[in-house]
Amino acid sequence: MKERLILISNDDGPHASGLHSLIEVAKDFGRVAVVVSDTGQSGKSHSITMNQPLRIREVETSENYSFHTVNGTPVDSIKLGFDQVLTETPDIVLSGINHGSNAAVSIIYSGTMGVALEAALHRIPAIGFSLLNHKPDADFTLSKIVVRKVLQSVLKHGLKPNIALNVNIPDVAPENFKGIQVCRQTLGVWSGEFEKRQDPIGRDYFWMTGYFENHENGNKDTDEYALSQNMASIVPVIPDFTDHTSIEIMKNWNFEQ
Amino acid sequence: MKERLILISNDDGPHASGLHSLIEVAKDFGRVAVVVSDTGQSGKSHSITMNQPLRIREVETSENYSFHTVNGTPVDSIKLGFDQVLTETPDIVLSGINHGSNAAVSIIYSGTMGVALEAALHRIPAIGFSLLNHKPDADFTLSKIVVRKVLQSVLKHGLKPNIALNVNIPDVAPENFKGIQVCRQTLGVWSGEFEKRQDPIGRDYFWMTGYFENHENGNKDTDEYALSQNMASIVPVIPDFTDHTSIEIMKNWNFEQ
Repeated sequence: MKERLILISNDDGPHASGLHSLIEVAKDFGRVAVVVSDTGQSGKSHSITMNQPLRIREVETSENYSFHTVNGTPVDSIKLGFDQVLTETPDIVLSGINHGSNAAVSIIYSGTMGVALEAALHRIPAIGFSLLNHKPDADFTLSKIVVRKVLQSVLKHGLKPNIALNVNIPDVAPENFKGIQVCRQTLGVWSGEFEKRQDPIGRDYFWMTGYFENHENGNKDTDEYALSQNMASIVPVIPDFTDHTSIEIMKNWNFEQ
Repeated sequence: MKERLILISNDDGPHASGLHSLIEVAKDFGRVAVVVSDTGQSGKSHSITMNQPLRIREVETSENYSFHTVNGTPVDSIKLGFDQVLTETPDIVLSGINHGSNAAVSIIYSGTMGVALEAALHRIPAIGFSLLNHKPDADFTLSKIVVRKVLQSVLKHGLKPNIALNVNIPDVAPENFKGIQVCRQTLGVWSGEFEKRQDPIGRDYFWMTGYFENHENGNKDTDEYALSQNMASIVPVIPDFTDHTSIEIMKNWNFEQ
């Protein structure tokens, strides 16, 4: 029987230290195949490339490890991983470790979580990992400990079909870490979002910026609260946007009026 | 008191006939401001532009109507609409009418629904409209009737905070239309996804393609089922990916093992 197969992707490009921290831990759990975008792809969400052809570059292939890059988005990469790079279905998909938070509503903008949600659509268990430090030289010591614990638990218990985990890790040393909390996604919004500048010939341009406005008022069952307590947050997520309570309300609407 | 303000965007670019069909109907309901990407943006999902500056181009501005384009994604456009183009909060956001279905899991790849979900994050009522015909010269006669009915109902009843509607419209003549159905998102996956070709010097490249694999086996409360019956589907959606049943299951996991 072949050893477990783990497919890994990310959205920070092939050289990100978060990616290589994830690969390092994953290798203890089975064969590892990496398929990633060849450039940084932060904020690419679940986008796919429909108007241009894609190419796959083989960087390294040995018996228990392979590394390929793709000239597309993170979701393109994982799709090409499933469909073209691998000859068997992976047992689990890991994404990250992202340099920067994907907690709360940031999940919707995240290429890291795009990968995990795409795996969930394929009914393959998936985990996206993110560290609350966006710097290229962030310290992934605690992250590697958390990856190991979460991966062990998922391999032991499994996940329901169509479910992925959004794991965010506080930027603290292991001795200040307070454990792992399963919670729900914080609701809120990114506000005050653009900085206006002028180019040398006087035309306006805009940089996206802004701050997160938390609409939860400190609710203790949310991922932002867990992270504020130096805990890692795990939100089980599903690629289904349906709001079932609204269905019940709207069934009484009369659209013929 | 000022007339109602409607903000409109899409993901098929400023010249799409679906966009202009939507504008035509919306003008009967209030002032209209259009802010759209300057090129087609299908498949851009909820992606945002973080590494490049954005520009806004004013195409037309009169007392009750304005039209601006943005050199970014659909979500960039609606964010710049909120933050820079408009001086007041719109009463409602409309997106589309998309040329092609955004039913079932296609919502996660859709720039049209990216716009609507971004508005929902801002707690502004929003509706994304899509016609099940991707051709540039698709017939929007029925679509305009459906837009009018749904918009009237939403303005009458309102939506809960953080909710948007994903409205898909069958590609049939009005006389064959069977009405409007509120339903849930069909689960499934896009499979068999790439066509492999070789360029003139023998290197492989890949076009994204594929077919939708419906995992619902004809469940009658889903959007794909309603559309198969020549009905328009409305799925109320929320930008919250949390799977609450998994939270209950996972609370018994022991991550310290």
